[in-house]
Amino acid sequence: MSTIELNKRQEQILQIVKENGPITGEHIAEQLNLTRATLRPDLAILTMSGFLEARPRVGYFYTGKTGNQLLADKLKKLQVKDFQSIPVVINENVSVYDAICTMFLEDVGTLFVVDRDAVLVGVLSRKDLLRASIGQQELASIPVHIIMTRMPNIAVCRRDDYVMDIAKYLIEKQIDALPVIKDTDKGFEVIGRFTKTNMTKILVSLSENEII
Amino acid sequence: MSTIELNKRQEQILQIVKENGPITGEHIAEQLNLTRATLRPDLAILTMSGFLEARPRVGYFYTGKTGNQLLADKLKKLQVKDFQSIPVVINENVSVYDAICTMFLEDVGTLFVVDRDAVLVGVLSRKDLLRASIGQQELASIPVHIIMTRMPNIAVCRRDDYVMDIAKYLIEKQIDALPVIKDTDKGFEVIGRFTKTNMTKILVSLSENEII
Repeated sequence: MSTIELNKRQEQILQIVKENGPITGEHIAEQLNLTRATLRPDLAILTMSGFLEARPRVGYFYTGKTGNQLLADKLKKLQVKDFQSIPVVINENVSVYDAICTMFLEDVGTLFVVDRDAVLVGVLSRKDLLRASIGQQELASIPVHIIMTRMPNIAVCRRDDYVMDIAKYLIEKQIDALPVIKDTDKGFEVIGRFTKTNMTKILVSLSENEII
Repeated sequence: MSTIELNKRQEQILQIVKENGPITGEHIAEQLNLTRATLRPDLAILTMSGFLEARPRVGYFYTGKTGNQLLADKLKKLQVKDFQSIPVVINENVSVYDAICTMFLEDVGTLFVVDRDAVLVGVLSRKDLLRASIGQQELASIPVHIIMTRMPNIAVCRRDDYVMDIAKYLIEKQIDALPVIKDTDKGFEVIGRFTKTNMTKILVSLSENEII
């Protein structure tokens, strides 16, 4: 895979075919006041790069695939499992105060809360903890299950989900992180964490030519 | 711009030029048992896409640019100004309690703190506010300048900075957001906010074929 930039004449050809296609090479050449031979390399480029298709006795027509369609197609196939982070999990009976300490110690923005069967029961964001901490309550005596966002109001993702679907979801819902879960008989088991930091890392990897 | 996939013959040509370049079109054709004319479109593609360069009386040589190098080059040229968000700014004398309320109202993860000349003096993250709120202090009576991260310990970026440099910096320093600043006689004026959410949006735009 590589990227190419179209030159001005190729852009002109695209425009002509968009407006008049299907159209023969001869007719394109006429409109540009050039010979068919002169256009041959440009038409080859446009055809091989997927912009145009050529049909015998019909002519060239526009495929509707605009620039970078293939890159976009590949990005859409990236999966959560290849980029997820390790989750930080706490028990539902831990105090809010201890949860805040865990958050600082582990330096994460989101904690996942589980019951004694290690099944996901809640999520705690920095925002949740901040909201609790400005209340006039004794943080050391409140268990997190009182203040957490609880099932079934928790968005989750799975190993095979597409990164781009999750990215859009995080933006739309203004969430920083999702648990990556595995379905079990008892409920969801937390096996990973997928965050905007993972997204940022994917972007850096793309610019350093490490993905795709 | 578009992405193209090389066909088998083009891959063969690349391999031959890698191993034998600089090499003339004639000699490449010989090795493949094809005519020079047959190869012309392939060589045009490989040259225009940046894989090969051609020099008169020397021949074709391999540029060393592997697939997606050009995409990576373009990603590296994205600038902060094209993707930044609007900053949320508070005065340094505002109370910690009011700062937390502002953070919830505006739904941002980071506040920028300015003095009466509107010059940047500090930054407040959710983490800073959470740390303050678990202390045994009266949040309504402490001004934010007591607890904020203050100049010169604040990382900033400018409109013309490259997105990828900022992305790497955010990951490395585990920061969620940077102020976008303008240099003035008095100091830094805050003109934007650049976050991991912006990075996530760039990634989505790439997958939807909206950038580059």
